Amino acid sequence: MKNYLLLCGGVGGAKLALGFSKILPNSNLTIAVNTGDDFNHLGLKICPDLDTVLYTLANQSDLSKGWGRSNESWEMLAALKKLGGETWFQLGDKDLATHIIRTQLLANGKNLSEITQELCDRFGVNANILPMSHEPVETYIQTQNRLLSFQEYFVKFKCDPPVTDFVFKGLDKAVFNPSINLTLFDEIIVCPSNPFVSINPIIQLDGINQYLKSNTHKVSVVSPIVNSKSLKGPTSKIMTELGLDVSVNAIADFYMDYAKTIFVDSLDSHQLHQIHDKGFETHTTPLVMNNLESKIQLAQSIFNYLETK
Amino acid sequence: MKNYLLLCGGVGGAKLALGFSKILPNSNLTIAVNTGDDFNHLGLKICPDLDTVLYTLANQSDLSKGWGRSNESWEMLAALKKLGGETWFQLGDKDLATHIIRTQLLANGKNLSEITQELCDRFGVNANILPMSHEPVETYIQTQNRLLSFQEYFVKFKCDPPVTDFVFKGLDKAVFNPSINLTLFDEIIVCPSNPFVSINPIIQLDGINQYLKSNTHKVSVVSPIVNSKSLKGPTSKIMTELGLDVSVNAIADFYMDYAKTIFVDSLDSHQLHQIHDKGFETHTTPLVMNNLESKIQLAQSIFNYLETK
Repeated sequence: MKNYLLLCGGVGGAKLALGFSKILPNSNLTIAVNTGDDFNHLGLKICPDLDTVLYTLANQSDLSKGWGRSNESWEMLAALKKLGGETWFQLGDKDLATHIIRTQLLANGKNLSEITQELCDRFGVNANILPMSHEPVETYIQTQNRLLSFQEYFVKFKCDPPVTDFVFKGLDKAVFNPSINLTLFDEIIVCPSNPFVSINPIIQLDGINQYLKSNTHKVSVVSPIVNSKSLKGPTSKIMTELGLDVSVNAIADFYMDYAKTIFVDSLDSHQLHQIHDKGFETHTTPLVMNNLESKIQLAQSIFNYLETK
Repeated sequence: MKNYLLLCGGVGGAKLALGFSKILPNSNLTIAVNTGDDFNHLGLKICPDLDTVLYTLANQSDLSKGWGRSNESWEMLAALKKLGGETWFQLGDKDLATHIIRTQLLANGKNLSEITQELCDRFGVNANILPMSHEPVETYIQTQNRLLSFQEYFVKFKCDPPVTDFVFKGLDKAVFNPSINLTLFDEIIVCPSNPFVSINPIIQLDGINQYLKSNTHKVSVVSPIVNSKSLKGPTSKIMTELGLDVSVNAIADFYMDYAKTIFVDSLDSHQLHQIHDKGFETHTTPLVMNNLESKIQLAQSIFNYLETK
């Protein structure tokens, strides 16, 4: 069996990671997660994408909201609101416990890989979930009027301001997580996460950028676009604002230098010809993951294709 | 009308402070609160006595427990427990909002007086509640086997280990809160708080210690001992362990150098003679504060005596 590395953002990536975690032994699966959305809030270190993957694999995520923990309560936030505190970021009481533990472990000198593994243990998750980097990379969204931090853009302004560009502060000083040895992996899978804000911070990192470019035969992309729209989140809105087609074809353009294979939904099969012309191989399979079964099926379909390619 | 300064610990002090806040205009009342019990926990700055006074004056304290906020919930703590976090200190969800705001304001460079005033504003409390000092003073309890931090002794070990002595770390580098100008006060009232762990850290501070000794005619003590026992908390247990009588007479000995007047409950009037022999004046009045009415009555009785003495 091959060794698999997933490059993963939040919700969409976490769904596929869950599917893979159900079909691959832990020893053959590593999940490298975007930390460009991480931020400090109310004195707490918050890692939204790591938490989404962790909660999803722990079967503790709120499936209806797509973020946060299931059966969450909001007592602290309600009290904070009454005291005039900052409440634009939704901090649930249970979620808070995760941030408190992480912040404390960071203060004790542990790095984010060690902390994430410790959180996995504490949540009973047997998986190699790791941050993309130990150095801070902060994703900012350039909008027409001003530069917004990712959380401001995503939560405070609900992705409303039109996007013109992205800035990854600290990227030049950051390197890909050194505890992930890229040469050990036979297949690197780009999850169906937002290419601009979830995947790009990962693949622009020193230590992985050149490796992917030199090993495109190992790299597959699972399209975040199905039926010419993004299933969740602002991907299609951002593509339109950037003047791109909302299509698998535009996704292929985006990953042109990094990957050789694209997994495409049959609803987009009219674009296969264009994508092949760019030099990609494609495999057509249902990409929508609405329940545990479809997450496992997609992982299995990708696995079957890559094991025998 | 005279100007009054209260020296105040947690529960007992907060009760009397509430009584005074109901009968005195804000301009004539300042409440200096012990911060020797303050500690950092889970990355949060926690000031138990300041919070008890604040919650009590905001009518938000849990009267049955004697600490924390009313209608409290414990969702974060339950989640923390499931994740193997530190849960010996009871952190309610609402209470947490207070600590988060305080910790954030401290990180923003405000001092504890400014922060306490801001918290008063946010809780709608119109009172001059101030910390005893801006420098950290940490109360430790010497027990037979080891030195315990106050919170370990009080919360983790439930006041069980016999006490042999007290250590106030940082006391030599701390000064009484410079925003409290002692010369402006006509009367200084030592609240019925634990003399050893709540009042002693205050009155040992540079900037107030000598002032009290030189102005004992201004200083009154409200006995924390009624009917030869402490109403709440470990005062009587500690007095016994230190080889002291559990009596108003022993309280008089404790405050001998600092005060001239003691308020005594009629249940202890058999000791008046001994106390007078030490040079104290006494005023006998009911000291038990079980409800709002008795808190106001005690404050009124003290006020009436001191205004006309």
